[in-house]
Amino acid sequence: MNQVETINIAETVQAEEAPLYVAQALAREFARTAVARDQQGGTPKVERDRIRASGLLSLIIPVESGGWGANWSETLGVVREFARVDSSIAQVFAFQHLMLATVRLFGTENQWRQWWQQTAEHNWFWGNALNPLDTRTSSQVISGQREFHGKKSFCSGATDSDMLIASALDAETGKLLIAALPTAREGIILHQDWDNIGQRQTDSGSADFQHVLVHQHELLTDPGPLSTPFACLRPLIAQLIFSSIYLGIAEGALAEAKQYTLGQSRVWPGSLAGNIQADPYTLLHYGEFWVALEGARLLTERAAALLDAAWSRAEALTAEERGEVAVAVTAAKIATTRAGLDITQRMFEVTGARATTAALRLDRFWRNLRVYTLHDPVDFKLRELGDWALNGAYPDPSFYS
Amino acid sequence: MNQVETINIAETVQAEEAPLYVAQALAREFARTAVARDQQGGTPKVERDRIRASGLLSLIIPVESGGWGANWSETLGVVREFARVDSSIAQVFAFQHLMLATVRLFGTENQWRQWWQQTAEHNWFWGNALNPLDTRTSSQVISGQREFHGKKSFCSGATDSDMLIASALDAETGKLLIAALPTAREGIILHQDWDNIGQRQTDSGSADFQHVLVHQHELLTDPGPLSTPFACLRPLIAQLIFSSIYLGIAEGALAEAKQYTLGQSRVWPGSLAGNIQADPYTLLHYGEFWVALEGARLLTERAAALLDAAWSRAEALTAEERGEVAVAVTAAKIATTRAGLDITQRMFEVTGARATTAALRLDRFWRNLRVYTLHDPVDFKLRELGDWALNGAYPDPSFYS
Amino acid sequence: MNQVETINIAETVQAEEAPLYVAQALAREFARTAVARDQQGGTPKVERDRIRASGLLSLIIPVESGGWGANWSETLGVVREFARVDSSIAQVFAFQHLMLATVRLFGTENQWRQWWQQTAEHNWFWGNALNPLDTRTSSQVISGQREFHGKKSFCSGATDSDMLIASALDAETGKLLIAALPTAREGIILHQDWDNIGQRQTDSGSADFQHVLVHQHELLTDPGPLSTPFACLRPLIAQLIFSSIYLGIAEGALAEAKQYTLGQSRVWPGSLAGNIQADPYTLLHYGEFWVALEGARLLTERAAALLDAAWSRAEALTAEERGEVAVAVTAAKIATTRAGLDITQRMFEVTGARATTAALRLDRFWRNLRVYTLHDPVDFKLRELGDWALNGAYPDPSFYS
Amino acid sequence: MNQVETINIAETVQAEEAPLYVAQALAREFARTAVARDQQGGTPKVERDRIRASGLLSLIIPVESGGWGANWSETLGVVREFARVDSSIAQVFAFQHLMLATVRLFGTENQWRQWWQQTAEHNWFWGNALNPLDTRTSSQVISGQREFHGKKSFCSGATDSDMLIASALDAETGKLLIAALPTAREGIILHQDWDNIGQRQTDSGSADFQHVLVHQHELLTDPGPLSTPFACLRPLIAQLIFSSIYLGIAEGALAEAKQYTLGQSRVWPGSLAGNIQADPYTLLHYGEFWVALEGARLLTERAAALLDAAWSRAEALTAEERGEVAVAVTAAKIATTRAGLDITQRMFEVTGARATTAALRLDRFWRNLRVYTLHDPVDFKLRELGDWALNGAYPDPSFYS
Repeated sequence: MNQVETINIAETVQAEEAPLYVAQALAREFARTAVARDQQGGTPKVERDRIRASGLLSLIIPVESGGWGANWSETLGVVREFARVDSSIAQVFAFQHLMLATVRLFGTENQWRQWWQQTAEHNWFWGNALNPLDTRTSSQVISGQREFHGKKSFCSGATDSDMLIASALDAETGKLLIAALPTAREGIILHQDWDNIGQRQTDSGSADFQHVLVHQHELLTDPGPLSTPFACLRPLIAQLIFSSIYLGIAEGALAEAKQYTLGQSRVWPGSLAGNIQADPYTLLHYGEFWVALEGARLLTERAAALLDAAWSRAEALTAEERGEVAVAVTAAKIATTRAGLDITQRMFEVTGARATTAALRLDRFWRNLRVYTLHDPVDFKLRELGDWALNGAYPDPSFYS
Repeated sequence: MNQVETINIAETVQAEEAPLYVAQALAREFARTAVARDQQGGTPKVERDRIRASGLLSLIIPVESGGWGANWSETLGVVREFARVDSSIAQVFAFQHLMLATVRLFGTENQWRQWWQQTAEHNWFWGNALNPLDTRTSSQVISGQREFHGKKSFCSGATDSDMLIASALDAETGKLLIAALPTAREGIILHQDWDNIGQRQTDSGSADFQHVLVHQHELLTDPGPLSTPFACLRPLIAQLIFSSIYLGIAEGALAEAKQYTLGQSRVWPGSLAGNIQADPYTLLHYGEFWVALEGARLLTERAAALLDAAWSRAEALTAEERGEVAVAVTAAKIATTRAGLDITQRMFEVTGARATTAALRLDRFWRNLRVYTLHDPVDFKLRELGDWALNGAYPDPSFYS
Repeated sequence: MNQVETINIAETVQAEEAPLYVAQALAREFARTAVARDQQGGTPKVERDRIRASGLLSLIIPVESGGWGANWSETLGVVREFARVDSSIAQVFAFQHLMLATVRLFGTENQWRQWWQQTAEHNWFWGNALNPLDTRTSSQVISGQREFHGKKSFCSGATDSDMLIASALDAETGKLLIAALPTAREGIILHQDWDNIGQRQTDSGSADFQHVLVHQHELLTDPGPLSTPFACLRPLIAQLIFSSIYLGIAEGALAEAKQYTLGQSRVWPGSLAGNIQADPYTLLHYGEFWVALEGARLLTERAAALLDAAWSRAEALTAEERGEVAVAVTAAKIATTRAGLDITQRMFEVTGARATTAALRLDRFWRNLRVYTLHDPVDFKLRELGDWALNGAYPDPSFYS
Repeated sequence: MNQVETINIAETVQAEEAPLYVAQALAREFARTAVARDQQGGTPKVERDRIRASGLLSLIIPVESGGWGANWSETLGVVREFARVDSSIAQVFAFQHLMLATVRLFGTENQWRQWWQQTAEHNWFWGNALNPLDTRTSSQVISGQREFHGKKSFCSGATDSDMLIASALDAETGKLLIAALPTAREGIILHQDWDNIGQRQTDSGSADFQHVLVHQHELLTDPGPLSTPFACLRPLIAQLIFSSIYLGIAEGALAEAKQYTLGQSRVWPGSLAGNIQADPYTLLHYGEFWVALEGARLLTERAAALLDAAWSRAEALTAEERGEVAVAVTAAKIATTRAGLDITQRMFEVTGARATTAALRLDRFWRNLRVYTLHDPVDFKLRELGDWALNGAYPDPSFYS
């Protein structure tokens, strides 16, 4: 009943070994409980373990390190596939890959090779404790030992993770320090305090670092955060993850709306059409949904292709090349935000009043998208893009651009 | 914490005996539990009894029948006041007056005078079991006794009511029969099956009429439903109730957004402004909220003034005069729908990600409005208005126009 | 063929002596040549003289000074009536009254009484040479005689005027000086250099002041520009003139669109409707036009009513009372701008391709509105309104707020 | 002064022999007189001859027939290049290729090979006299000779053409007959009666066919109009031409707006930014322009790629494959229409009031787009796309889908 058909038949994957095929099978599973889990909130432990078992946690890891060797387009395709039915799972799965990218981009080859290999070997799930706007965690060296100490909010996917990317401000220099740590490290306390109106199973709650020991080899200081054009791909990957999830949510909403309209909606008395399928206004809405979604889709896929190209340039990437990716990613983020908010709000106008039953929880698409599109303000994305359009200026690299 | 200031200082009522003053006091009470009750759903028994005790159930009833003698502008003002903090209560309170109007418009003077008087005397709460699109309840005369038999959906405010307006199709003639019945009448079964994503405490669930006896004097057949221009004010009252509630929801959302922005939001790094209060984009959103809301407010108030004039014309009302009210009501409904959906969706862009905490349930404004604006499709309201603008045709009277 | 019916039958004025009746007769005349004069540009000398002869130039002047004694609501109603068929004429006619208001608000009773009386007596047409953003004209006292010297742009209605309101910066103090001068005064040179894409007959070209003598009694220094809350009504009158003209343009566009749709448009093959009058999409557009226009109309009329109240308060007007008018005027300006731009652009979608023939010049509605809505940026109006909605701050008085 | 820089540096073509390089050189030339020619209207004879001389009239013709062998993506790229500076020229140039496609799709190999070869050899310019909604031209066989007789409207590019594609209804069978005729054929009278508010140099006036002789070998009856999926590509090519021109107009408008903002606009007093380049609202508009345009661009380019693939499938093309192209083309048409109308209207808000001077005629972008986007109603395109999104139905082939 809650099984969502994929939007585009052409995208159905045949090869059983393909990541998207595996993801689609999992997505069908997740769809069956998505409504119930949206209500519950908390940690989707069963689903996280199903992902662990699937091997998809190593999707972006190269074959030589034991992974699937997918590129970003494929990886984000899987993210979007999950997002169609469950955007919380999509988020923690995507953050897995953002964390793997973080060690790649900010750390030494020695570091990321090891972590990638171990991740592939042990199906490690990575969580996030890097929130650059939250400055309450600081780092000090005490008796020759470095520690992280303080609080941190919005730690998506930290609960039930095996590894964490955590940040702190160096008490001495004021610089941002980022480390990869085992979640089980003593002193790391993760609170189950995420209870929000959307993205309810992302465990984006708060963490406490109580004098947590951090080894030198766990610090990502070479080249360090946002240190080079290549390192500056990190926020772009994050932003493109958002776009992919927004897009997936919108696609999922449209698929459910369609199923409901076709199966249950009745044409309004007085329509010139004999049935809902031919009603001029219903078709107008669907037409608008489609054109917005299709544009957003192309922008997102193009940004992913540019990201793939930039990723493969590695340390040779120039600031200008990075800037081109940034412009494409920004456009995708805005388009998916707007198309998604419109579709998840207006989908009810093509389904009708009865579709508001809590049994379906169709509002979850809007709630999930509404929450997640607030990560950073779309107004400032538009300003960034305006600066490009008018002044030819690439976005200034930051953790949000 | 959840106390919502009224939007417009000028509207604060001074006189303690004024209905709006009484309503504002109740609204402040209701506001304190609105978040919790949105989560619970079910019947707001305490609040219904507080309204009973306030005497406001007789607001529209003339002084000579024991009521407050308010006009529609005042009555809808109270509805809107409630809607700012709790649109479920606003709906059942408004339906009380729609039911009182129904007996006035469809029944004989003898009928409505009695029911109005008894309502004023006993503080009767009226509920709705009139859903013209649901044809499952039929009426037959068996052994000289008329009965209503069958199911009925969307019976807002029926639970905990004292009287019901119920409809059935006459099995013989196919005509719509409407009756005013004591809710306690044998055979009336009200199901507690309303569990939707919004308007969660309206008890808009289903009812079963099991061979329910209906006396001749309980039938509203003289002049009967939609029989005269004056009788045709009934759907306009219903539609203007919707507008007033949509408007109140939007005003409540804006008030909470404002309180949050001022109290808790932080300006985004990179804004040219030093604080959120001066941020150009934040101000742009608030400016757009205001202008849309102000236009919707004027349209709604003007429609209410026209309704008052038409109501006082009583049986002398012409089809053209009724048409003028209809056009104004339709415009108000569209404007409040659109302004409200925009504000309740976009309010989060002026508050920020933290405002999505489930503790505040700020999404309830959108959920309530989303559900309630689906009562009948806004597309067809626009078509109706277009027919007026292009062809000079007044809306055809029906239970929706 | 170009005769535009008035939009609302109810507004047709019966009494022959009523200003609106006189204006409607003139408007019908102007409508016959509006298309041709839009093409020509230049000064509408014939039409200006027809207005002179009608006496309407004294519309706002009190009866005791020889005028019609109209209030602002009536005066702006006449402005809007003209704007429906010819927004250039509407602008210069409205500026007549803005200039009369300027002497009232910035000058002494002795000054304005005289000028008003003479205007009523001689049917003086006043023109504008006050552009606060253009600082090229300065004022000096040379040998005991004050002169204005320099250039001035955007001097609407200066050509063919009898009197001018002109501004200059005092070379000594830097303060803005405003004077009322006979247009024929030696040294005033008006260039016929206004050739823009819209508002083509407003003569909004440039002027040269070549050592123009200005007498002390011609200076409006007591109380002086923007010196008191009452004096600060001047920009609000200007802004409400804009709104009224924008509204009139939109109403005129809608009236012509309607006439064309009904008379000449054909329904698109494939529509479920047999004729254009019943086409669902055509009706949807007209419905949207109507609701936007009706909201804008109410906002404008309410602002005019507030202005009238403030105007009658005269010197007793407080800053807060002035602020309330300002908020209402700002909302009206935004709403008329947006509704108007949408209607004048989208009107072609309800008329079809053939309506783009140059013979009709239906694009003049858009061109006129597009030009005139750029007077000052709507973005900053929204910011102003946002500052009110969020911070409760009234707009800072300036020549634009 | 009117020289428009291309929007995307990356697109500048280096190779001198490339069609886009040749087109860009011509476009620079055309740009210099575009403003003046927009005012004049009439036939751009000089420019038509410059195109003739450039050889670009054979752009789509295969190398073996003497042409440039370009595909549709390249051809439409040239169309868009022209449209950026002069959308009238873009239209007649594009219609050249639509006519060449018409003989290919509706005629025999013998027919199109000959016409293509002769076109390449003599630089024939083809014009249009095929308007399926205008049924006034009929065809009869009189004394064994077939003739076309009657009137035809909207004959874009017919004036100064060498060949015409003309249509008539067979008086006997009622079927649509299409023929390729020398424009000089006796009895063909082209009226210079195109005088519209936009696309002023497209010569889209009317024609008279006075007993015009049509030879059997000039009739395109094998396979005939819209007879096969491949033949049904014809309307899709037409629709994608529209999209490409709409897109080019929007790009040209944005380029001019940018140049004006950077060169001449002043920041509004009160902006938090010190200059227009950093003004938050100005940047917001540019950001919105960019994201809309970029989405429209990707949709258009994707549709062109699909068209190229379908074109190369030739007679093997299936209805489903044709349907996929149709869906993509429809989405592109809607997106370019909407993005374009918004940009050409709103560009003035980032340039300011002075940019409305008639010397620049910046309104021509809006006028051109407004006229051309009315070719067939965008509402029905949305309905078509809705039918796809909801029902999975491909657009029914017709001359508009």
